[in-house]
Amino acid sequence: MAGKQKEDQGLICPRFHRAVEVIGRRWSGAILRVLQDGPTRFGAFKTAIPDLSDRLLSERLKELEEFGLIHREVSGDRPVVVTYSLTPQGKALKPALDALGEWASKYMRDVPA
Amino acid sequence: MAGKQKEDQGLICPRFHRAVEVIGRRWSGAILRVLQDGPTRFGAFKTAIPDLSDRLLSERLKELEEFGLIHREVSGDRPVVVTYSLTPQGKALKPALDALGEWASKYMRDVPA
Repeated sequence: MAGKQKEDQGLICPRFHRAVEVIGRRWSGAILRVLQDGPTRFGAFKTAIPDLSDRLLSERLKELEEFGLIHREVSGDRPVVVTYSLTPQGKALKPALDALGEWASKYMRDVPA
Repeated sequence: MAGKQKEDQGLICPRFHRAVEVIGRRWSGAILRVLQDGPTRFGAFKTAIPDLSDRLLSERLKELEEFGLIHREVSGDRPVVVTYSLTPQGKALKPALDALGEWASKYMRDVPA
């Protein structure tokens, strides 16, 4: 595979670079982590991540949807219920996010838990 | 542990949030990936990541040093040789970066490799 070959030559695979930046954007990792526990309504993100503003949450959800990581579903009527869930591609990020979580709990000692 | 407990309650551990943002900052993931192959001189990063400017490389290296992920060593004389290497904390990121790399090569199909 071309990507692997490039890495063997000491070049960074652009796919890896892109992946890190997608999940590394401010709050995206946290949002994906919440979704790993199951489909989530807009308001429920705010319970899980109190510091996140409505505006930024909307922006990040839209980006993650465009990246094909999450799926948005509208149901009900007056008021409509908007629910977000992981796509298969988003679910497949679990091992990477888990490994990062393990590292963080072990090494991010200077950050209050 | 307080962080784990918070996550069980549906809240995102601030350590996880911080970890994702540290490695997700533009080019940081790529720089860490290069360093996983061993100590690297300033100029060698540019071979591995051609799109990265000197200014941004310096900035990122300084940040990663402040975060305790990399170590900077100056040796020689006229010209001095500056070499960067991973600290134990930086080396411990390998499983997470590897998992992310696997995911990227499988799912980031729209990004040219």
